[in-house]
Amino acid sequence: MTQLYLDDLKRGQTFVSGSHALDEEQIKAFARAFDPQIFHLDARAAEGTLFGGLAASGWHTAAITMRLNVESGLPLANGIIGAGGEIIWPNPTRPSDILHVESEVMDVAPSRSRPERGIVTIVSKTLNQRGDVLQILTAKLVVYRRPVA
Amino acid sequence: MTQLYLDDLKRGQTFVSGSHALDEEQIKAFARAFDPQIFHLDARAAEGTLFGGLAASGWHTAAITMRLNVESGLPLANGIIGAGGEIIWPNPTRPSDILHVESEVMDVAPSRSRPERGIVTIVSKTLNQRGDVLQILTAKLVVYRRPVA
Repeated sequence: MTQLYLDDLKRGQTFVSGSHALDEEQIKAFARAFDPQIFHLDARAAEGTLFGGLAASGWHTAAITMRLNVESGLPLANGIIGAGGEIIWPNPTRPSDILHVESEVMDVAPSRSRPERGIVTIVSKTLNQRGDVLQILTAKLVVYRRPVA
Repeated sequence: MTQLYLDDLKRGQTFVSGSHALDEEQIKAFARAFDPQIFHLDARAAEGTLFGGLAASGWHTAAITMRLNVESGLPLANGIIGAGGEIIWPNPTRPSDILHVESEVMDVAPSRSRPERGIVTIVSKTLNQRGDVLQILTAKLVVYRRPVA
């Protein structure tokens, strides 16, 4: 995979990650560790909640999105370093979902105070195998310029 | 812990969670599963990166924040159901950090279309034992009204 620097990025560039198959066990394991709520832990009890069935923690969807972007989605030379961002979860992530991430560069802003880097705004949509949008993350990433040889 | 409904929440209310002691092993385990980048995996190699040493994935800080809010931070009767939010990481989370979360209700907006619920905006700051702010999450949460008996 070509490793990209700030110089290589421009508005409108798109990237597509590989995929990740979720299952009930992964959803429950993440929930036990980080988000122990009934709608992430117990399929039967989850039926009576807002989710109408077992759903992954939104933070689990975010974490899987990160892994997909690190491994195959965003080939940034210095890694994916987030300063922050906006996140929404339009639809629940379900046990049978197969996730992938589609990303687009929205803005490239060289830093004025630090000439060796800049901030790149990237929207990463996390979708399942039916094209349902599970998460939209608009991230501000710290990206370095290509080092002078 | 009193369980709160939409009717019980108002702007300016504050909540403080219990604490969670992080360590190098937890940081690496989360990174192996969800954010396998050198600055989250290898303390020595991390010295030469932007972080200047081992740092937790931002998503790990977010996940710990969620656990603290679920277990002790935000006593919402129907659980903590996020529609989305904004997140920033002003400082890296380090292996020796002991995290806790301080939250404040910023807005309570009853739904017009769904009278049984509303959207509550809560800012949750995640701090370490020295008071460094590691994360600021401004979350939109779905909160139910107290059921009519």
